[in-house]
Amino acid sequence: MPETDWAARARDIGHLARAAARQLAATGTRTKDDALRAMANAMRAEAKAILKANAADVAAGKKAGLSSAMIDRLTLSSDRIEKMARSVEEIAELRDPVGEIIEGYVRPNGLLIQRVRVPIGVVLVIYESRPNVTSDVAALCLKSGNATILRGGKEALRTNLAIHRALAGGIQGADLPADAVQLVDRPDRDLLSELLRRSDTIDLVIPRGGEGLIRTVTEQSTIPVIKHYKGVCHVYVDDLADLDMAAEICFNAKVQRPGVCNAMETMLVHKTIAARFLPRICKRLSEAGVELRGCERTRQIIPDAKPATGEDWSAEYLDLILAIRAVDDIGQAIDHIAVYGSAHTDAIVSEDIRHIRQFVRDVDSSSVMVNTTTRFSDGGEYGLGAEVGISTDKLHARGPMGCRDLTTYKWVVTGNGQLRM
Amino acid sequence: MPETDWAARARDIGHLARAAARQLAATGTRTKDDALRAMANAMRAEAKAILKANAADVAAGKKAGLSSAMIDRLTLSSDRIEKMARSVEEIAELRDPVGEIIEGYVRPNGLLIQRVRVPIGVVLVIYESRPNVTSDVAALCLKSGNATILRGGKEALRTNLAIHRALAGGIQGADLPADAVQLVDRPDRDLLSELLRRSDTIDLVIPRGGEGLIRTVTEQSTIPVIKHYKGVCHVYVDDLADLDMAAEICFNAKVQRPGVCNAMETMLVHKTIAARFLPRICKRLSEAGVELRGCERTRQIIPDAKPATGEDWSAEYLDLILAIRAVDDIGQAIDHIAVYGSAHTDAIVSEDIRHIRQFVRDVDSSSVMVNTTTRFSDGGEYGLGAEVGISTDKLHARGPMGCRDLTTYKWVVTGNGQLRM
Repeated sequence: MPETDWAARARDIGHLARAAARQLAATGTRTKDDALRAMANAMRAEAKAILKANAADVAAGKKAGLSSAMIDRLTLSSDRIEKMARSVEEIAELRDPVGEIIEGYVRPNGLLIQRVRVPIGVVLVIYESRPNVTSDVAALCLKSGNATILRGGKEALRTNLAIHRALAGGIQGADLPADAVQLVDRPDRDLLSELLRRSDTIDLVIPRGGEGLIRTVTEQSTIPVIKHYKGVCHVYVDDLADLDMAAEICFNAKVQRPGVCNAMETMLVHKTIAARFLPRICKRLSEAGVELRGCERTRQIIPDAKPATGEDWSAEYLDLILAIRAVDDIGQAIDHIAVYGSAHTDAIVSEDIRHIRQFVRDVDSSSVMVNTTTRFSDGGEYGLGAEVGISTDKLHARGPMGCRDLTTYKWVVTGNGQLRM
Repeated sequence: MPETDWAARARDIGHLARAAARQLAATGTRTKDDALRAMANAMRAEAKAILKANAADVAAGKKAGLSSAMIDRLTLSSDRIEKMARSVEEIAELRDPVGEIIEGYVRPNGLLIQRVRVPIGVVLVIYESRPNVTSDVAALCLKSGNATILRGGKEALRTNLAIHRALAGGIQGADLPADAVQLVDRPDRDLLSELLRRSDTIDLVIPRGGEGLIRTVTEQSTIPVIKHYKGVCHVYVDDLADLDMAAEICFNAKVQRPGVCNAMETMLVHKTIAARFLPRICKRLSEAGVELRGCERTRQIIPDAKPATGEDWSAEYLDLILAIRAVDDIGQAIDHIAVYGSAHTDAIVSEDIRHIRQFVRDVDSSSVMVNTTTRFSDGGEYGLGAEVGISTDKLHARGPMGCRDLTTYKWVVTGNGQLRM
């Protein structure tokens, strides 16, 4: 397609979304919730078609040599579709964030000042292979009154088209504009580049995925971006830790589900307890199949550990591999996290209130865990309901991002003729 | 300077700021407030040097043919410096936003979840000729625990350097790092371009200024940007308005201070009251020296008004000029604002609750005023204390942006050994 056509396509997508967003912003909670339930039921009704499309994607993916982890993320079943439908219904049950008066007060001159929660407008979400993101994000955006432009990975395109067809049917059945949720059916980079320049019609871009995707989006976008990037999560075991608790937490953080962004990738251990702590935890981790890569001091205690290189300290393994460093003190642990971490989720295990306060204050991560596992960094676990993802940015939304984070506010100022002098 | 040197300079500025930010985030309120008072006193002590530098800037500006409005914004006096110092002292009196627990609750598994307000980190502020921005922004950022990189206009460079010297002296005197506030002493575009790519060390960019500056920053930056852009503000006079009140509000919104972003630029009048309302308000505006530019219907009532062209509807005059349109109904007023407005501040004058609710819901502007003037859209008037500016973006901070909006939050999760199953 010639370049100008991509630009025209992006402009059209943006304009359709903007028109739908204006309508959604004026739509009441009941209508939105009815639409969500209709979307859920439409997915159930279309389950066969969705599964058929998914089987074609999976077959093509296998042929193209996708990793088994990617195939796993891509593959749907009747059960998974039912879970997706239920997740949309749960979003219908959430409290509508739109219209909340965040604060309100009267000024000396009698003006009533209110900050009122409103939808952001049009949200472009760029994601990779998981098809459940299609329905989850569409539902969260609709609940919060936003129009959505979904741009999934090309390996899931047939599946996403089938899911989108069901969702759009449900939306229209509830008398809302089908353009409230658009799926980009051509996952070309050229079209994406044009979309990223439509700051006239698109208000927010949320990329979820790998480094290449995130970098492309950040460099090209003239629209505000909230990145959902990697987690290089640490657990620091303090010299004043309960070592039994520390062992349980470190094991859970590494092994319970290693392939996710809130799993521990590096364990930092205070040098004075390293000789007591490392042998027991490392034995247990090794038995669970974890490959250990340690600093020099670690390897004096655990000779079986491989030597850790500079790259290990900033690696997001997403696998049964753990980097281990024995640190001089809590300050060195905090510095290590500042240098090598990704500001996602970091934990301290300690019984000492001074150390805990220092760690909580000085570790600049979206979630700081005290005496619990990094694995709890999650919208569901925080009680937010379904999550858009975990923001690794600092602006607007940080950490687990729920329905409420898809809103902004306006100032509403009510007077009875006040003038400025 | 060769390109690589600009890159190195930007990297150094960013690293110094990051180091200072880490120290500031761990600094208590009392120390920050002492530094702010020391900064105010240092400006007073250095007033002579500041005025001398300012005189040189003003002379150079006149020679370079700056407009009288720009010269006015640039020019300092002892009185203005005293006001700047007092403004910094007032910021010291504000409540410290850092450490506030925004929300906190206990989950069923006993985890205590808290959202705690923390500094953003490093803020780059790009602005034009007003030298008071230098001390205001430095003070607001320091109060909220952020390191600042200030990049003012080159026509104010001598003045800003002198103000910065005073501020840095005050900061160091209070045992905080002088790099907490850096001034870019080379206002070259090349250096700015390099700074806008330092997302590794800079967390937020705030451009305040004209269209060219804002566009450059938005296109080049890989760092999140909060734009402080123009105000094309409307007052809509409803068919159910109190016309006496409407006349006072429209006059105030246009005439009280026409050169600022929250002044009215377009007046929208319901057609059924146009023949009654327009003659009286237009007479008063004309007497105050306002040039009127009207739509066809307006000119049938006010023949002296010049014809308004398409460009008038989106013009930010910042001057005694007013565009006037008679609209069919409130829906057309809302559509006009959606198409031509800048989402800054828009007002309705009406006695009808249905119309007011419709306008408040459907006008997607950072401030929506009901029965009062657009001129109240201001951090001071909203009770925020000094303001960073008025954000015309929707993400993170919208409308008047105060000290609190220079913060983000972290999730702090405290347990006693909870594991994820």
